[in-house]
Amino acid sequence: MPWRWIREHWLNWAPILKVLAVLWLVLAAFMAIPWLVLVIEREPDANAFAQSIGLVLAVVALVWAGTRRIEIAFKPWQMFLLTTLSWLSISAFASLPLILGAPQLSFTNAVFESVSAITTTGSTVMVGIETLSDGIKLWRGLMQWLGGIGIIVMGIAILPFLKVGGMRLFHTESSDWSDKVMPRTGGIAKATLGVYCGFTLAAMLAYWLGGMRPLDAVVHAMTSLATGGFANSDASFGAYAELPHLLWMGSLFMLAGALPFVLYIRMLRGSRLALWRDQQVRGLLLLLATAIVGLSAWRIGQGNAPFEALTHVAFNVISVVTTTGYASDDYGTWGPLAIMAFFYLMFMGGCSGSTSGGMKMFRFQVAAILLKSQLNFLIHPRGIFASRYNHQPLTDDITRGVVAFSFFFFLTIAGLALALATLGLDYMTALSSAVTAVANVGPGLGDIVGPAGNFASLPDTAKWLLCLGMLLGRLEILTVLVLLTPMFWRR
Amino acid sequence: MPWRWIREHWLNWAPILKVLAVLWLVLAAFMAIPWLVLVIEREPDANAFAQSIGLVLAVVALVWAGTRRIEIAFKPWQMFLLTTLSWLSISAFASLPLILGAPQLSFTNAVFESVSAITTTGSTVMVGIETLSDGIKLWRGLMQWLGGIGIIVMGIAILPFLKVGGMRLFHTESSDWSDKVMPRTGGIAKATLGVYCGFTLAAMLAYWLGGMRPLDAVVHAMTSLATGGFANSDASFGAYAELPHLLWMGSLFMLAGALPFVLYIRMLRGSRLALWRDQQVRGLLLLLATAIVGLSAWRIGQGNAPFEALTHVAFNVISVVTTTGYASDDYGTWGPLAIMAFFYLMFMGGCSGSTSGGMKMFRFQVAAILLKSQLNFLIHPRGIFASRYNHQPLTDDITRGVVAFSFFFFLTIAGLALALATLGLDYMTALSSAVTAVANVGPGLGDIVGPAGNFASLPDTAKWLLCLGMLLGRLEILTVLVLLTPMFWRR
Repeated sequence: MPWRWIREHWLNWAPILKVLAVLWLVLAAFMAIPWLVLVIEREPDANAFAQSIGLVLAVVALVWAGTRRIEIAFKPWQMFLLTTLSWLSISAFASLPLILGAPQLSFTNAVFESVSAITTTGSTVMVGIETLSDGIKLWRGLMQWLGGIGIIVMGIAILPFLKVGGMRLFHTESSDWSDKVMPRTGGIAKATLGVYCGFTLAAMLAYWLGGMRPLDAVVHAMTSLATGGFANSDASFGAYAELPHLLWMGSLFMLAGALPFVLYIRMLRGSRLALWRDQQVRGLLLLLATAIVGLSAWRIGQGNAPFEALTHVAFNVISVVTTTGYASDDYGTWGPLAIMAFFYLMFMGGCSGSTSGGMKMFRFQVAAILLKSQLNFLIHPRGIFASRYNHQPLTDDITRGVVAFSFFFFLTIAGLALALATLGLDYMTALSSAVTAVANVGPGLGDIVGPAGNFASLPDTAKWLLCLGMLLGRLEILTVLVLLTPMFWRR
Repeated sequence: MPWRWIREHWLNWAPILKVLAVLWLVLAAFMAIPWLVLVIEREPDANAFAQSIGLVLAVVALVWAGTRRIEIAFKPWQMFLLTTLSWLSISAFASLPLILGAPQLSFTNAVFESVSAITTTGSTVMVGIETLSDGIKLWRGLMQWLGGIGIIVMGIAILPFLKVGGMRLFHTESSDWSDKVMPRTGGIAKATLGVYCGFTLAAMLAYWLGGMRPLDAVVHAMTSLATGGFANSDASFGAYAELPHLLWMGSLFMLAGALPFVLYIRMLRGSRLALWRDQQVRGLLLLLATAIVGLSAWRIGQGNAPFEALTHVAFNVISVVTTTGYASDDYGTWGPLAIMAFFYLMFMGGCSGSTSGGMKMFRFQVAAILLKSQLNFLIHPRGIFASRYNHQPLTDDITRGVVAFSFFFFLTIAGLALALATLGLDYMTALSSAVTAVANVGPGLGDIVGPAGNFASLPDTAKWLLCLGMLLGRLEILTVLVLLTPMFWRR
């Protein structure tokens, strides 16, 4: 019996391991880029990358040896596991160069930094970023860029099928991989990757022509499109505060990363108005416009020059709403209204099917439809109201998914903030750290973790809790929570 | 045509006015109590009450003259209007003695104080409460006591029928007044009033025997049972910090006010275990026990004497969760965990059908059931899960009502906090004031509006916004919002 038990479990887990090994192989391939740069520049950090690549490859080889004959076919429960494990393991492996290399981060700090990178959050524990080797800077950018493409693929191909958090709204034929050995997403995936690379190259070129040094242009291009927010300076994008055209370019590319990538593909295939016709995109633009106009008026009222105020408000609002997390200025000093507004904006997020995190626009819109129909119901208790969202009927299971996600989102933040407060973090630091982690934004509010602060001074336990929060947020919470129910394992 | 239009509208509004006039008459009758006390004590404040009574009676007479022949029969839309208008108008009339009498409050401060009283919130703008005349002290207590009974009646007889916020769960035969001229709640209403008076008398006696002066015993008994929280000292219940038995009595009577009053009636009619068999009551007790044990352990760990720590933790936790709002100590100085915990506890509220505000226990329990079934759905997409709450099936319209209420509750708080921040209130003050107002708790957090603070120093606009928040919270938000939809008026 025990033999059969082991065999059965192995057959369940082996396909998961096999796919994970492929992902780790990709990670190792990307590690080769900074390694190459460092070898050319004859920097000692090259060894750190060589060792990391060696370690990852060794694990990959081991797994491949054991799973050679295993066929890849997944049931939903395996997809839940695979999704969670891929983000966990990639974050762990990606931290290796930060431990082995010149930054010599502690284990906790390295994992915090790589989880923050892979989840495209952008909170950092590193100081003196200007002094890091080019390879490490590049690696921070690459981690976010990889995380970004991972999120898009997950949003298009995996979560809609798993029906997580109302994502079934975005269930297209391309996310139907149930009866196939491999996802039938080949075409869409390739096109998405193409668009993502195209935007990144455009951003690199624009930033470089705009005045950034080549390496900075490359890193910032990657962390803009990934809505990640790692910058090459402790001052974040504030290093370019005197070059407003760079701030506007940054705003544009962050926004590009926060729109649904399938719509770009539809536009390329001839539907020129696909973006504008999308209810979610219109909602996001309306939110951004409202916040930017409102806060700019407030800043100008405080006596700031109109164009400068608009530039910085637009940049930081777009940065927070798209969950990028760059800062061009310390908006913590803009007064109570700005602090409260940024606190709310941290929850928002961009569109689903993009690289951004947070609650995401469509959930607010579905909730608004729900609330409106509830008010109608109170007035006409016997009326029947069929709701539609984005040209699709809004079925009960979608609204239930959206509601459950929203509740879990707030609960996760509330629990995390309480745990952080137990560790001694003050009210604003605890609350805003929890939001910024779960929404994958980056900076929090207040002197410690605000846009001018850094997460380095937090206690180690707080960093681990925030890692958990970032991963939960990135995986739309329910994907992970499902794994913690007894029902999942009884199945 | 215009004549017919006016006549039709008059016939719609006249029954509402007629019932309002009855309520105003009751208010005037209650104003006679402090008036009598002040006449006996030969205090000049007696005139203020005499003038107020005269004014109210004049309005009542006017309305009665105009509506003598009007028959009282309501459609749901009229009940929405009547409910909102009754709280608005009673708050306005109740503020008269505070303007005309010795406190000589400004119009804004007087309305804030009376709205805070009638909604049983308990936030105060008055300082030097010890120095007020007995009549004014008594009036503050009476306003809360009246508000308390109003809330119970609204929760039992009106909101379940209007299907507001999932309250249909508590739809009993006694809340079915649809086809009757008067609510069929006669029996229940009398019994409820009896229980409410009985508890209040018991509290008066207990407080008096426990060492309070007679007037203090009377006022604190009324504001305990109403979960209102007005005290006769600037130090709130802290004036009795040296008499722990009074704090425990206070805890007990606040809790008594936060349990469903229909269950007391059922107990009196022979069902001895009615309270314990109720899922909502058990949930509230569990929440209180968890919070009290956790925070007491934290306080004892900080080096406080165990019994003293337990006494103050229990008193302040029960005060905040039941939305009473007394404070026996400045828990703002208990450290970050306590501040965060009290911030969350402010949202909670007691049971529906009691005098307490907040989200109320049953909504958290319904939400928990919803979340659990959603996790099950992710694992078994084709499974069907019938949910029950408190021995009743949990139908879709109830969960939808609970969800809509929760979203509107958070939205109201968020909007209010943003507006307060615009007026210059800091993050913690703005956020906690908004919560404490909408949840009808009383004190907020921080130096200004915290348990050791006072709302007097806030700008007038902030006070009006908080009045709006208190009324919205008290009327379960949707009751008021419905009135703001074009659909309501198009009907």
